[in-house]
Amino acid sequence: MDRSEAENTLYEVALDSQLQEGYQGVRLILREVLRKSPLPIRDISRRTGIPVPAVSAARRELEKRKLLTRIGGATLSDAGLDLLNSIGICDQNIPSFHSPYAIPDLIQEQIIEFDVLKEKRPDPDHSLDQSHAISTTCFRRIMYCHENDAIEGRDIAILGDDDLTSLAIMIFSSRYGLKIKSLNVFDIDLRILDFVESISRKLGFEVNLYQIDLKEKLQESYKNSYDVIISDPPYTVAGLTRFAGVGAEMIKENVGGIAFLSYPNLRPVDNALFFRNIVNFGFSPKELIPGFNEYVGAQIHAGKSNMGRFFVSCLDINSSDLPSEGIYTSQRDL
Amino acid sequence: MDRSEAENTLYEVALDSQLQEGYQGVRLILREVLRKSPLPIRDISRRTGIPVPAVSAARRELEKRKLLTRIGGATLSDAGLDLLNSIGICDQNIPSFHSPYAIPDLIQEQIIEFDVLKEKRPDPDHSLDQSHAISTTCFRRIMYCHENDAIEGRDIAILGDDDLTSLAIMIFSSRYGLKIKSLNVFDIDLRILDFVESISRKLGFEVNLYQIDLKEKLQESYKNSYDVIISDPPYTVAGLTRFAGVGAEMIKENVGGIAFLSYPNLRPVDNALFFRNIVNFGFSPKELIPGFNEYVGAQIHAGKSNMGRFFVSCLDINSSDLPSEGIYTSQRDL
Repeated sequence: MDRSEAENTLYEVALDSQLQEGYQGVRLILREVLRKSPLPIRDISRRTGIPVPAVSAARRELEKRKLLTRIGGATLSDAGLDLLNSIGICDQNIPSFHSPYAIPDLIQEQIIEFDVLKEKRPDPDHSLDQSHAISTTCFRRIMYCHENDAIEGRDIAILGDDDLTSLAIMIFSSRYGLKIKSLNVFDIDLRILDFVESISRKLGFEVNLYQIDLKEKLQESYKNSYDVIISDPPYTVAGLTRFAGVGAEMIKENVGGIAFLSYPNLRPVDNALFFRNIVNFGFSPKELIPGFNEYVGAQIHAGKSNMGRFFVSCLDINSSDLPSEGIYTSQRDL
Repeated sequence: MDRSEAENTLYEVALDSQLQEGYQGVRLILREVLRKSPLPIRDISRRTGIPVPAVSAARRELEKRKLLTRIGGATLSDAGLDLLNSIGICDQNIPSFHSPYAIPDLIQEQIIEFDVLKEKRPDPDHSLDQSHAISTTCFRRIMYCHENDAIEGRDIAILGDDDLTSLAIMIFSSRYGLKIKSLNVFDIDLRILDFVESISRKLGFEVNLYQIDLKEKLQESYKNSYDVIISDPPYTVAGLTRFAGVGAEMIKENVGGIAFLSYPNLRPVDNALFFRNIVNFGFSPKELIPGFNEYVGAQIHAGKSNMGRFFVSCLDINSSDLPSEGIYTSQRDL
């Protein structure tokens, strides 16, 4: 197969499978299969950052063209290998090069405590895009927040706490004697607020709990009040944008603050749109870490999402300008 | 000292030292000194991401107020400790939590080869904001590019090659037998092009060399031609924006591409502005890694800069809309 034929094939596969990641996405899928096969679809999604349904559609087109076969996961056929070679992709030897942000062992006992305390937590409400981060992820987040000066002496606001980030903060800061100025949990789901309240009583930790629908206009008393925003919003551009915008309103105006936003691998256009939106709210990106968060379930995103850290300096923001429709995945036109 | 007095002090120090990072910046400086002291000013800059002259101005104000002393580096006075405690900052025990992207040992011999070959390279021309990345950084970049599917079979454009990224690519891809589609070096500085040419002859590696002033309108023949853009532009918002915009024009329109941009710790407003500009060119941020690059010298930025990886899907871009004045630091109004 010559190069232009190979490139055209990748291009056609992208078109026929309506893969938004396009030529580059198809190339990436085949490359990951070359580097490790057989590769289950969920692993392809994790390694490429392309959502599972999209990988699945592309795989179907690649199988139709006999470039991939399915033997305990995706495997390249001889034709597939030939295609990759003709666009220059051969490497199977160079070690992979990642950013693990590994949790130190000394945190393990805190994770065990967390697991015991969270045992009776409410089940995820998928209509609100809830899905639980694994325990390690909760502590990875807190260590990351602390590393970035976002725990000690801070007024912390958690927007949506189905992951029980507040509980991880309580355990972590108790263990190390960190003094938080105030810990504030905002959620629409009373079950979560009740659960956090019961745990905080057990631990003797003060938490402020607020039932709030983040789709509504933000109450004045919550504005201009917090140093740190932690959120893992619904995974639509509208949802991400909305939560970020509300977070920006909550940040203390005169000093600015820090936002930690978990967000999924969006389609390229959506990713650009999401960043365009939040930059316009005064979110200044400081670090973006692919695959930082891991979830129980969360099939579409192969159980992974990204972490973004932002410095937030307040510009003029008014939540009535923000979208309040189409926030949750289930409301989205698919 | 009570909390509000402490907070006011931080606020005043920020005002009096004209620190753009504000209250948060002063807090961060003191926190880093608490975590490790005595701390030389260059290390404070590296750990906080605030440029050296700005740290220096803030330190002067903190010394005036007897919060810091200088004993082989910045050290907290008792008053400084008291201030930090009153805003809740005490931790000196929790291990730091970083993303090292460590170079594997097996790359060492390539770095040695690189060091030998680059011995006679031209000195940095500071009027063009040249400053040399250390050898490890060059290989960290290449491993990172390869991890992200940006070497094999790619049309690669390097915009400004004073770091000799092209040489690192030649060594790395020869060592592993990677086939690059084409390696293209764009630079305004003939000395660099001549040097790269002499090395490429020595190694028997094909490189296309183009003398180009990136402040001028981009020639049609360079547009819509490359898969990968690698650049470490001049560290002004105008310079970063300009190079990114030209890079976006160079990316193949129908398939999109990948851009690797090294950029400094900008002041918060400038950082927001930089991201706003490049997002509008179709740069979709995928990963941002603080402190990825290290330089010989480069005092203002304490010898460090960040790495950004972007998916670039082409929107309508016309370089005549881009700023072409104030690109280099030396032209900037300070």
